[in-house]
Amino acid sequence: MDREQRRRDWERASEPYLLAASLLFLASYAVQVLVPGLSPGWHAFWSLVSFVTWGLFVAEYLARLVFSDDRKRFVRTRWLDLLVIVLPLLRPLRLIETHDRMQRRRAHPRLALEARVMAYTGLAALLLGFAASLAVYHDERYAPGSTVRTFGDAVWWACSTLTTTGYGDVTPITPRGRVTGAVLMVLGVALVGAVVGSFSSWLLRRFRQEGET
Amino acid sequence: MDREQRRRDWERASEPYLLAASLLFLASYAVQVLVPGLSPGWHAFWSLVSFVTWGLFVAEYLARLVFSDDRKRFVRTRWLDLLVIVLPLLRPLRLIETHDRMQRRRAHPRLALEARVMAYTGLAALLLGFAASLAVYHDERYAPGSTVRTFGDAVWWACSTLTTTGYGDVTPITPRGRVTGAVLMVLGVALVGAVVGSFSSWLLRRFRQEGET
Amino acid sequence: MDREQRRRDWERASEPYLLAASLLFLASYAVQVLVPGLSPGWHAFWSLVSFVTWGLFVAEYLARLVFSDDRKRFVRTRWLDLLVIVLPLLRPLRLIETHDRMQRRRAHPRLALEARVMAYTGLAALLLGFAASLAVYHDERYAPGSTVRTFGDAVWWACSTLTTTGYGDVTPITPRGRVTGAVLMVLGVALVGAVVGSFSSWLLRRFRQEGET
Amino acid sequence: MDREQRRRDWERASEPYLLAASLLFLASYAVQVLVPGLSPGWHAFWSLVSFVTWGLFVAEYLARLVFSDDRKRFVRTRWLDLLVIVLPLLRPLRLIETHDRMQRRRAHPRLALEARVMAYTGLAALLLGFAASLAVYHDERYAPGSTVRTFGDAVWWACSTLTTTGYGDVTPITPRGRVTGAVLMVLGVALVGAVVGSFSSWLLRRFRQEGET
Repeated sequence: MDREQRRRDWERASEPYLLAASLLFLASYAVQVLVPGLSPGWHAFWSLVSFVTWGLFVAEYLARLVFSDDRKRFVRTRWLDLLVIVLPLLRPLRLIETHDRMQRRRAHPRLALEARVMAYTGLAALLLGFAASLAVYHDERYAPGSTVRTFGDAVWWACSTLTTTGYGDVTPITPRGRVTGAVLMVLGVALVGAVVGSFSSWLLRRFRQEGET
Repeated sequence: MDREQRRRDWERASEPYLLAASLLFLASYAVQVLVPGLSPGWHAFWSLVSFVTWGLFVAEYLARLVFSDDRKRFVRTRWLDLLVIVLPLLRPLRLIETHDRMQRRRAHPRLALEARVMAYTGLAALLLGFAASLAVYHDERYAPGSTVRTFGDAVWWACSTLTTTGYGDVTPITPRGRVTGAVLMVLGVALVGAVVGSFSSWLLRRFRQEGET
Repeated sequence: MDREQRRRDWERASEPYLLAASLLFLASYAVQVLVPGLSPGWHAFWSLVSFVTWGLFVAEYLARLVFSDDRKRFVRTRWLDLLVIVLPLLRPLRLIETHDRMQRRRAHPRLALEARVMAYTGLAALLLGFAASLAVYHDERYAPGSTVRTFGDAVWWACSTLTTTGYGDVTPITPRGRVTGAVLMVLGVALVGAVVGSFSSWLLRRFRQEGET
Repeated sequence: MDREQRRRDWERASEPYLLAASLLFLASYAVQVLVPGLSPGWHAFWSLVSFVTWGLFVAEYLARLVFSDDRKRFVRTRWLDLLVIVLPLLRPLRLIETHDRMQRRRAHPRLALEARVMAYTGLAALLLGFAASLAVYHDERYAPGSTVRTFGDAVWWACSTLTTTGYGDVTPITPRGRVTGAVLMVLGVALVGAVVGSFSSWLLRRFRQEGET
């Protein structure tokens, strides 16, 4: 068995564990940000969970890099894997890839293709919006003059940003919060654009079909 | 006559009554929200109308569920019917389905297909915007610090949200108002996107046709 | 010569005069709104110009209605002509139709089709934005608490509305100003959407062409 | 060798120098705007750099005009070259044209076409956003009542404008700043629309491909 094959087997076997780890990472971050009076013991525990799961991603990436035949090519084609190490909050997006692969293994997928596209990009937008809400709430809540006072404010801000409505009643003011906002604008707008676009085109197509019968 | 056939006959026969009930529901909600000094007697009357029409939707849904041969499939394929029971303000959207079916029964529909798509999605966006304006006005008008003071404010907010303009001079601040806002953003943006998109494509197509002659 | 033919000849002959009248109407409205200390004499003069040009549109519409063989059909198919009588500020949009017809009379139009679509819809958006700026400035400038203090504010508001940016630093607050705003949102968004959409698609197509050579 | 051929040779030879000059112009403008306590000597130096590089563009345009056989046609077809003389901050956009030409000279370009479209329009939007941030920061920072206090504010404003989010927490108030804003809205919205649109279409296409295998 050659190295490339071994790497691929490894990727398939490790997938469910990494997915669980990524959800655990999001959960640990959410608990640390959202639970107000966390006791020092629990705080240490959840920090540890964050650190260990993040360490797992790093270790797994390095292991695959070492096993790879052509390392330069690996770094270039797997730039997304490197990105989710730097921004681990984006990691749960792999949930979609995993679910999609499971769906395609079945002979008759339960959802039509168009519905799946909407479901997956919608789910990705939801995860991204949730992660951005957490990050902005974390960075902004104690900033002087901030308009992000509760987690509900942060979610409301994420909604109005993702749909490009942009009320401006709630906006980040710290540099880190604004960087998160800029990422959400560009990435999220494309994702929500894909959902809205496919819903619109589905609407138009359905009317057209009915018009022909 | 088998059960499935009976269910279909029932759906066809009950359609106009349910449509009338859904418009009555919207009207009763509008009266309760918009008429300022409603006497206790009238208030009780319109509350009763709301309750009875809503009860009718529930009863009709349960009846169809019982008559159905494959109940699991019924729940899964008719999820839209379940949704309009939870959010009865969305019920009048069925008006469009009914009108479209009536149009298609004619040999020569009066409107071209493209115009019909624009008319239906436009009407749906209008109904959705009106229902959202009512709900937001209802939830926000007495909230401290609210910017939604008159029904006109609520309609203006709905307009700027549906077109994703999002001025932010009028925005909901209560949790329920913001949930309504988020629903309007996602659903309404897609509907208005469909109208604007088909108008744009009609414009472009018309220019192209003129360019060829 | 039959009646329908006579109506068509009339339309062709009257076109340049009506176009001049529509530009005169826009100019007279602009002067009344924008020139600050207009003397009573000039004010009366420009009011007269507005009134006479508008009366011309009404008379011309009625004349064509009388000359028409099938009046119901005339009202139905020429609803745009009725609209520009109610909202005469939209009248100059016919400039585009006229220019396009002149272009098509030539054997070799000077502009490519795509550029013409962009030019016409862009010009329409410009005219609509200018008319809406005038109307909003007219209605809002003396309203208490208004944010539209100068004509520049009104133009800036129109820009941010047409591109659906919607900053909200300048927004109409009077009912009439908000109705103008809602019309601008829906109509203008579609027009600008057509321009931006064709520019984007032109960009993408140009890159694709270059990629193939 | 005829004149037209000589002009083309000249364009090819001068390209790298002009590109370097355009980046130098942007850099000199950025230094003058962003470095706070610039000594008079350095200020004079960078002003000189701006002036010389801008003079180079003018000279090069005039030279090409003189060498051209059909001068009217030159002015008409090269209107973009005239535009970047009036607005030299747009000049670095030619970087994209140059890079694209270099890519196409290779037999096997390193990036797929779709990725290149996204990269080029994305880069153009980035350059445009950076130039607009500089210009707005330059015009607004000392204006009374301005919300653009730091360069970070200006970048944040450019982000929210380019994605049509338009929070409105930071907006230009001076006439020149607003003209910059209007240009950014129309041009940038089309560029970002192209990026977001191709990303969305790439997402949808990828899902579709996976659905077929």
